[in-house]
Amino acid sequence: MARVYNFNAGPAALPLSVLEKAQSEMLDFGGAGMSVMELSHRSKDFDAIIGAAEANTRSLLGISDDYSVLFLQGGASLQFAMIPMNLRREGASADYVNTGSWASKAIKEGKLNGKVNVVWDGKSENFIRAPKPSELTFSSDAEYVHICSNETIGGIRFPEFPTTSSPLIADMSSEIMSRTIDVNKFGMIYAGAQKNIGPSGLALVIIRKDLIDRCPDNVPTFLKYKTHAEADSLYNTPNTWGIYILKLITDWVISLGGISAIQKINEEKAALLYSALDSSDYWTAVAEKESRSIMNVAWRLPSEELEAKFVNDAKKAGFIGLKGHRSVGGIRASIYNAVPRESVAALVEFMREFEKQNG
Amino acid sequence: MARVYNFNAGPAALPLSVLEKAQSEMLDFGGAGMSVMELSHRSKDFDAIIGAAEANTRSLLGISDDYSVLFLQGGASLQFAMIPMNLRREGASADYVNTGSWASKAIKEGKLNGKVNVVWDGKSENFIRAPKPSELTFSSDAEYVHICSNETIGGIRFPEFPTTSSPLIADMSSEIMSRTIDVNKFGMIYAGAQKNIGPSGLALVIIRKDLIDRCPDNVPTFLKYKTHAEADSLYNTPNTWGIYILKLITDWVISLGGISAIQKINEEKAALLYSALDSSDYWTAVAEKESRSIMNVAWRLPSEELEAKFVNDAKKAGFIGLKGHRSVGGIRASIYNAVPRESVAALVEFMREFEKQNG
Repeated sequence: MARVYNFNAGPAALPLSVLEKAQSEMLDFGGAGMSVMELSHRSKDFDAIIGAAEANTRSLLGISDDYSVLFLQGGASLQFAMIPMNLRREGASADYVNTGSWASKAIKEGKLNGKVNVVWDGKSENFIRAPKPSELTFSSDAEYVHICSNETIGGIRFPEFPTTSSPLIADMSSEIMSRTIDVNKFGMIYAGAQKNIGPSGLALVIIRKDLIDRCPDNVPTFLKYKTHAEADSLYNTPNTWGIYILKLITDWVISLGGISAIQKINEEKAALLYSALDSSDYWTAVAEKESRSIMNVAWRLPSEELEAKFVNDAKKAGFIGLKGHRSVGGIRASIYNAVPRESVAALVEFMREFEKQNG
Repeated sequence: MARVYNFNAGPAALPLSVLEKAQSEMLDFGGAGMSVMELSHRSKDFDAIIGAAEANTRSLLGISDDYSVLFLQGGASLQFAMIPMNLRREGASADYVNTGSWASKAIKEGKLNGKVNVVWDGKSENFIRAPKPSELTFSSDAEYVHICSNETIGGIRFPEFPTTSSPLIADMSSEIMSRTIDVNKFGMIYAGAQKNIGPSGLALVIIRKDLIDRCPDNVPTFLKYKTHAEADSLYNTPNTWGIYILKLITDWVISLGGISAIQKINEEKAALLYSALDSSDYWTAVAEKESRSIMNVAWRLPSEELEAKFVNDAKKAGFIGLKGHRSVGGIRASIYNAVPRESVAALVEFMREFEKQNG
């Protein structure tokens, strides 16, 4: 069995120890005589799993009792719809910052049934950076301000988060638990799990409790945060397997020393790769320096032909997932928490060799 | 490792061979050098998985090209909301049949933003049976007729399906792929996967293509069937692990001889259990004979004290999940496709012994 170097953008690499644990418990979870997938979501065994998943998340991110932690389905895409349904009241408006593909999708859903102010738009610059705080002026009557804190496709992130008077809502799908944050700055944080904290089919929502009651009565029960908050994410059958894997992954993050420890490793990994990009004109990093993501690193080669050759040669050498998103082209390496330093070092070595042979 | 007798109502028992296969492929799926959870949902490997899941489903249920087969998230609970959003146009109404807890939940969501006609209601009889075709009169202008074909909690099912002029929509969560059906009788069939065809966090939707276009424009993108149909269930990242397990389970159903073969086994299992219930006044089956589910069997003992003792003694003997749903009490055994005949035989043996000692 040879494991490849996995740079997929999501679903993405998982820690090997997590997979081994899930494998060992597949036929019999902790003496229950069944797999996790066969446990009732209302059993004591599953209660312990979801309880630990929430406790780990609260402890790692420093989430106070002012916030609910929810394990939902539908990924970030359903959140794009649920946020305006729940948090923007009839006739009111919301502010959105447009930093790229994912922010744009959130904006599109926001505009469907109400008013959206796009307070900053990076489109004319091809989404190569996040705005500086000084560039942002928010509407005084906005119900919330929405940002995508790290754009998976463009490979940019907010180096620091804006201060807002309305609740700040952040899509952190591609960087959740990769760097320390102050949750108290946010009204809500959400993330599709499949990049940094679990398999696909699971979304983490951290929402300030006072916002949960804003929701109009005629919103369908399943689409209200209130429904899931009051039922501790067990209103209906949740993605029990996904929550179990999230629990194992957060155990693993804790074992490494928590988020500040993993942030240090992430910064080292990113520095290794960006240094390689900066060391030669052969490579061109896409993002402006100040906005460079430490999770998704995007770059170009001298030509599209060389980019195609790079992706193919890399694949043959065991490096998977390096093709840039079809909407922008180029190369992208997603170096999430679970991507080992060794994978990044091997990639940099491969890049040096490739440049030598194709320079 | 001792596997228990698993009678959970959902999430529920999975075929042992499916778990063993998933276990063996956990670190390296088919030579990809990564687990299924780490595959990109846009990779060739995952394409093959979702393609086989759909092909298996179409072949087993005899689904023609007039229907789309979708793999969604949010379980049946999200479908309760999506159905009226997508299929009941402004000002129009829909017919619903109320056979129990799950039909009631669908009705509640149907009433939120439009008109519902409850054309038959089993509540006054405590939901012990499905209606006869002769008892049903549908509205001539209904956009659709909604039924729950098998009520997990009450343990009843439609022995035969009504003929309707409006499209018939059935929640088949707890009986999908357990008996042969004629898909062409239905406008739409849907099922949370976690009872008969997969883990939780996945919903199967089979929808007639001409219905997909009914949806109003202002429905959020993620909540439109059209979105998922046009993208072959890959508009956003689906529950890749769930789809993989569904693929393995449908492989297993095919290996047994398909749905007619598994239906025969299911009928034998159900007959074994109902015969035991009918053989003594000590047990009282809840459902009327004609409406008895072959998936969820509900019964009572002479007293609630004896029911509690039965559940506890059974648990000690390795029979899990026999407590009736909290809303109705009593005993319930869910004997889905993956519950082996041996489990049912062992349960019947245990019941005989229990009656002897507590009769």
